[in-house]
Amino acid sequence: MGFAAYYFLDYLNSLQEKCDVLCIYLDTPVNMDLYDFPYLQMRFAKIDLLNYAAIEHELVSFFPTHIVHLASFSSVAKSWHDPAVSFKNNTNIFINLAEIIRTNNIPCKMLSVGSSEEYGNVPVECIPIKESMPLQPINPYAVARVAQEMMALCYASSYKLNIVLTRSFNHIGPRQRDIFVIPSFVKQVLANMKSNKSSEIKLLTGDISLIRDFIDVRDVVKAYYSLLEKGVSGEIYNICSGKGHSIKSIIDMLSDLLEVKISTAIDEKKIRPNDNKIIIGDNSKIVMQTGWEPKIQITDSLRDVIDYWKQR
Amino acid sequence: MGFAAYYFLDYLNSLQEKCDVLCIYLDTPVNMDLYDFPYLQMRFAKIDLLNYAAIEHELVSFFPTHIVHLASFSSVAKSWHDPAVSFKNNTNIFINLAEIIRTNNIPCKMLSVGSSEEYGNVPVECIPIKESMPLQPINPYAVARVAQEMMALCYASSYKLNIVLTRSFNHIGPRQRDIFVIPSFVKQVLANMKSNKSSEIKLLTGDISLIRDFIDVRDVVKAYYSLLEKGVSGEIYNICSGKGHSIKSIIDMLSDLLEVKISTAIDEKKIRPNDNKIIIGDNSKIVMQTGWEPKIQITDSLRDVIDYWKQR
Repeated sequence: MGFAAYYFLDYLNSLQEKCDVLCIYLDTPVNMDLYDFPYLQMRFAKIDLLNYAAIEHELVSFFPTHIVHLASFSSVAKSWHDPAVSFKNNTNIFINLAEIIRTNNIPCKMLSVGSSEEYGNVPVECIPIKESMPLQPINPYAVARVAQEMMALCYASSYKLNIVLTRSFNHIGPRQRDIFVIPSFVKQVLANMKSNKSSEIKLLTGDISLIRDFIDVRDVVKAYYSLLEKGVSGEIYNICSGKGHSIKSIIDMLSDLLEVKISTAIDEKKIRPNDNKIIIGDNSKIVMQTGWEPKIQITDSLRDVIDYWKQR
Repeated sequence: MGFAAYYFLDYLNSLQEKCDVLCIYLDTPVNMDLYDFPYLQMRFAKIDLLNYAAIEHELVSFFPTHIVHLASFSSVAKSWHDPAVSFKNNTNIFINLAEIIRTNNIPCKMLSVGSSEEYGNVPVECIPIKESMPLQPINPYAVARVAQEMMALCYASSYKLNIVLTRSFNHIGPRQRDIFVIPSFVKQVLANMKSNKSSEIKLLTGDISLIRDFIDVRDVVKAYYSLLEKGVSGEIYNICSGKGHSIKSIIDMLSDLLEVKISTAIDEKKIRPNDNKIIIGDNSKIVMQTGWEPKIQITDSLRDVIDYWKQR
């Protein structure tokens, strides 16, 4: 069960309406204790989404009204390491789901989650990025997401499947794994503060001039819910805060929140050759069509991330 | 062995230089008698391109200097019938080839063939279509081709593989199967002329107002050869005649060449809901960069297609 999936369930439970949920998961261990969601009647199925027959069996039996497809190999770095596996695990699992819905005539609404990575290198004059921006993916993960999106559009327009699409920007929040930039920083700083009595913490970073659009995962899952309610089939929606923060400014915020001086040094291994300098999304389409808007300020997200890692 | 592959070998042989060729084929029967190419030292291997280990074994043993990847599930109609199979058989076989080349360090130049279908519905003011046109694929075959192309660009830009890309337009020529529009017409008219003594032939058609850019397969394979010689890695080239002909005008040409009156009637089964009205390509990029240009006039292609089907 992934990062976004946990928070989606948490949000669903907070609505205080009884709801049947089938969770299909693969290798993330499901700790049942963590899932204290009294309003959700939960069923768990450990199946590889590439296993068409097993997934078909589960879906025909459960007969969902909504599918939130949050499974993915979302690491760009991993996709460079094994592009074939990354591609198949992103694109083919989506096609399997869509084919099962189509051929079994399951009349459900499906959320196809994409990524801001699909845009690739965007000229500064096109920031903030609108959904109409032509796609120029520059890594295998991003290509797989574009292929998934284009297949979803075919299924929506020609097979009349009810599919709403997103391009989701950089997530932030407690429970995010420390292979991502912000939890990795928080973990490093906290560890250093514990062992180090000097007044300044040294942090190893990649390129801290990069500007990204971070959005709290708890706002993301509310956006997903609003799209399942009000999103138009065949339409693509940016899920983003609309605000850009440099990695440098995030480090400054951490420094303020933790009341510690942080100095940075470049770790060459963390520099990617073709990273976008600046990614900021335009969220006016989803705001206009659903009324959703991001609520959680980045400093509040950071505070919660710090609290989460303090408890580890 | 497909339609374009046969003509590529034929052209290679016509250059009168000794050349070793490994032909990997799947289910098209290889009639060895047909392959009278004295300059080519040919080896045949019947392998499914999805079979990574078997292909890797052949390629490492043969160690090619050039790969012309002409295998595909090229039927748009078939891709609607079984999108998952169509997608895997187009995209995943390309990724397998690229991975084998990358991981075995085979220093070869590869041709990745795409399709004019990738462009989707193009506004009339953007005709003739340049390679810079944003892609809007509207069927699973086209999406698979776009995904193949975007993965090829990743392999070329980041792994530094030597890959030249095409978007090839509608082929015409003898030996093309009669599931395609022109051979299907020629076959119908010839059969009717034989059995029918009236002065007018009735032809069942789809939408004959559609305009397409037909290019003779013998010009196509010369373009592929010129790209293997002079094409720039990571660049995409339209392979097209640059001229548009309506299906109606093709029927008029057939009528003239066969000296018979042809009347048409719509077969509703042949109307596709989302066909592009007009597709004409701009070939100035490949013409400028390689000196190649299409030589065969459409009436000469049609005459050869008629001769071919007369001999059946």
